[in-house]
Amino acid sequence: MPPAADHHDFARDVAEFLLPEVREILHADPTQLHPATDEMHPADLADVVKALPDTDVALFIGALPAERCAEIVEYLDHELRTHVVSALPSARAADIVGEMSPDERADVIAELSSEGAAAILREIAEPERAEVKTLLQYAPNTAGGLMTTEYISLPAGTTVQNAMARLKSAAHEHETIYAVYVLDDARRLEGVASFRDLIGGESEQHVADVMDRQVISVPVTADQEEVARVIARYDLLSVPVVGPDDRLLGIVTVDDIVDVLVEESTEDAQKMAAVRPIEQPYIRAKFISIFTSRIIWLAVIFVAQMFSGTALRHYSYILDTQKALGYFVPLIISAGGNAGSQSASLITRALAVGELKVSDFLRVVGREVGMGLALGLGLGVLGLGRSLMWGDTSSIAVTVGVTLVFVVMAGSMVGAMLPLVMKRFGFDPALASTPFVATAVDVTGIVIYFNIALIVMGQMIAPS
Amino acid sequence: MPPAADHHDFARDVAEFLLPEVREILHADPTQLHPATDEMHPADLADVVKALPDTDVALFIGALPAERCAEIVEYLDHELRTHVVSALPSARAADIVGEMSPDERADVIAELSSEGAAAILREIAEPERAEVKTLLQYAPNTAGGLMTTEYISLPAGTTVQNAMARLKSAAHEHETIYAVYVLDDARRLEGVASFRDLIGGESEQHVADVMDRQVISVPVTADQEEVARVIARYDLLSVPVVGPDDRLLGIVTVDDIVDVLVEESTEDAQKMAAVRPIEQPYIRAKFISIFTSRIIWLAVIFVAQMFSGTALRHYSYILDTQKALGYFVPLIISAGGNAGSQSASLITRALAVGELKVSDFLRVVGREVGMGLALGLGLGVLGLGRSLMWGDTSSIAVTVGVTLVFVVMAGSMVGAMLPLVMKRFGFDPALASTPFVATAVDVTGIVIYFNIALIVMGQMIAPS
Repeated sequence: MPPAADHHDFARDVAEFLLPEVREILHADPTQLHPATDEMHPADLADVVKALPDTDVALFIGALPAERCAEIVEYLDHELRTHVVSALPSARAADIVGEMSPDERADVIAELSSEGAAAILREIAEPERAEVKTLLQYAPNTAGGLMTTEYISLPAGTTVQNAMARLKSAAHEHETIYAVYVLDDARRLEGVASFRDLIGGESEQHVADVMDRQVISVPVTADQEEVARVIARYDLLSVPVVGPDDRLLGIVTVDDIVDVLVEESTEDAQKMAAVRPIEQPYIRAKFISIFTSRIIWLAVIFVAQMFSGTALRHYSYILDTQKALGYFVPLIISAGGNAGSQSASLITRALAVGELKVSDFLRVVGREVGMGLALGLGLGVLGLGRSLMWGDTSSIAVTVGVTLVFVVMAGSMVGAMLPLVMKRFGFDPALASTPFVATAVDVTGIVIYFNIALIVMGQMIAPS
Repeated sequence: MPPAADHHDFARDVAEFLLPEVREILHADPTQLHPATDEMHPADLADVVKALPDTDVALFIGALPAERCAEIVEYLDHELRTHVVSALPSARAADIVGEMSPDERADVIAELSSEGAAAILREIAEPERAEVKTLLQYAPNTAGGLMTTEYISLPAGTTVQNAMARLKSAAHEHETIYAVYVLDDARRLEGVASFRDLIGGESEQHVADVMDRQVISVPVTADQEEVARVIARYDLLSVPVVGPDDRLLGIVTVDDIVDVLVEESTEDAQKMAAVRPIEQPYIRAKFISIFTSRIIWLAVIFVAQMFSGTALRHYSYILDTQKALGYFVPLIISAGGNAGSQSASLITRALAVGELKVSDFLRVVGREVGMGLALGLGLGVLGLGRSLMWGDTSSIAVTVGVTLVFVVMAGSMVGAMLPLVMKRFGFDPALASTPFVATAVDVTGIVIYFNIALIVMGQMIAPS
């Protein structure tokens, strides 16, 4: 099986390497699959499952114990996971789902059809069934949707020795045993003792003597980005999740937050480029699902961009006498659009990492106007020079130069304002995508351009 | 001091809340600062330091023990950290730096001026000095640059009981004690035993009996994004870093990877919007540093975009007889640019998360050409309809519709190819930024447009 040095290669390489061997075992003697793959990481086996044909997936799942299947299924994409679990008889599916951690179990069940979910829930024992139903109440992108209910809690008077014994008994079942949570009689958090606090303490001490009372927690309704910020800020391995009455409801672990960060970056990158977020990895996503994710925003922006044509028609009498002005239209609107996308991306990102608040509006917009002025002066000088080099009249060159100053200022301002306005009205600031900002600035830019032309060249332009 | 419920608010809120109290203590009786802030998280105190005036920062650092200062300084931005440490007498600076974990210590010293670094290194004891010099050899964005040399290693024959005793003695000093690394005589990795493996084992067992022999490790030269991918893929708390001879050199912990993920997302977002990455947070960055980060790419793209003017001048004789064609120029080039930025962002992101390889070139480009055809047909129909509604001739409407198909195809293809080509030649694919792709497509789009016009309208256009 794979040498350690291969592990840092791409996921697909691991799968390509293992696939033939796994298929050979499956077709020769499936009972050999478990012993042959026992030492392998479930993430690698999940990649093998992704590459197997459907019929072999059934053989694969049938050949492994439920506990091992649960580990592997947790690493599959949502879509494939649903597909694999739906294809199983409900008793077997319930066995596998029953071996998962509570948060994964709820996620898998949430993705099934309502009949599929009901069939599996019927096979699951009562305390787990109630737990799944509780977890399903929370929205998937919140602390409640991410948390697991598998944590160790104990009263403050427990000795360190007894707390270590609780950790020992939990070591085999629980996903995470980095800390024990100290609760009062009403299950409110009194403190947290990490494994490090416990092992550093003396056996006879009480947990209350080694625990940290300044517990950092998140509310169950907190957005997953907020949970990620808290974990990142305080370098936590897990963060407790509390209800409105301050009771402990569960914990979110850092491995889930790493996944959230990767997923949110991908989503933000897609939104910034006016692509509606795509659930599957690019390479495996269906043509039609990428198409719909793209055409929606492309069409919306296209319709908005039509106003640039309306504006050009409106001012076309200026082009009749000053034809050369037309040659600068793409240059001018692209300069404004590019400055605008720079601002939009800086502001969107600063909002995402929590550096900026909507109440910083005036400060940010003021700064971006100043920045736009400085950038515009730079590009204005370049534009004026280029126009003179092309042999245009000095009035055209001046019009181009002055317009660039104003268009770049307008672009920076619009780019900075849009994400803040989106956020203010409860939308995702990343929806103020680059193409969207560029289009808003394009139309504005054309209007600015021709009005400056009218001011600079006044009498030279015959009214229509 | 702050109630637990406030912790999940923004960083700046915590600082605003604490600042007046801290300043009052500093000016009344600095010796009270340590007892008053002892229970607080160093991340929160770091935010207070960021908000304090320079003279108060000196008082603040003077009032706390070196160990506490070290914790707080680790949470400061690079720039402020350098500023604070440089302002201290070198003996005090060495005391504080000496209390840091080896990786942080090396990072702080790397950021100082060469005299400042030499002065502090002179004050540091020999084994630590040698360690700093070793760590400084590695590039900051690699596994070597991120790793700490503070880990627990032991031979395979150690009993579980003795391994736990090692963890206990390390609990007070080491940053991370999630695992012990089992090494052979040549310091090559034989296995890893997590805290969970150890506590789940029996006291008399050997570590060899409970350890995992399939160790996932990264080479010391691995890029930080690759380290992040490994940690994310296998849900690790830490990953061992090995040299070319397979010897263990250090470990990278998940909290550093969380920071890497946040930082890389910000950098990629900035690069995609043609902003040269800015080191400081937006809100605190100097005007001039944002200006230079923005003007460089804006000017480069502006110069490239000038070719759109050259192209328009070249085909201007067509506009003399078919004036209405000019009104569609912004609409057409923006459609191509938007499709191109969608493709560029999808491909860049897929490369960043390791889903795609450069060798997928043909497959990706083929797919994007198909996608561009589908998207272009959609927009082409819209454009044709709009042209007819404006009362243009049917030959203009057909020119616009057909052009949109080809321009959107060209945009998707260029947008997909650029990041792959960048990556192939060793550049960061995110440099294929949205504005850069849009500009390439703008110029191409104009050429496509007028050539299609010549084909569709042939005789109607008087040659110049």
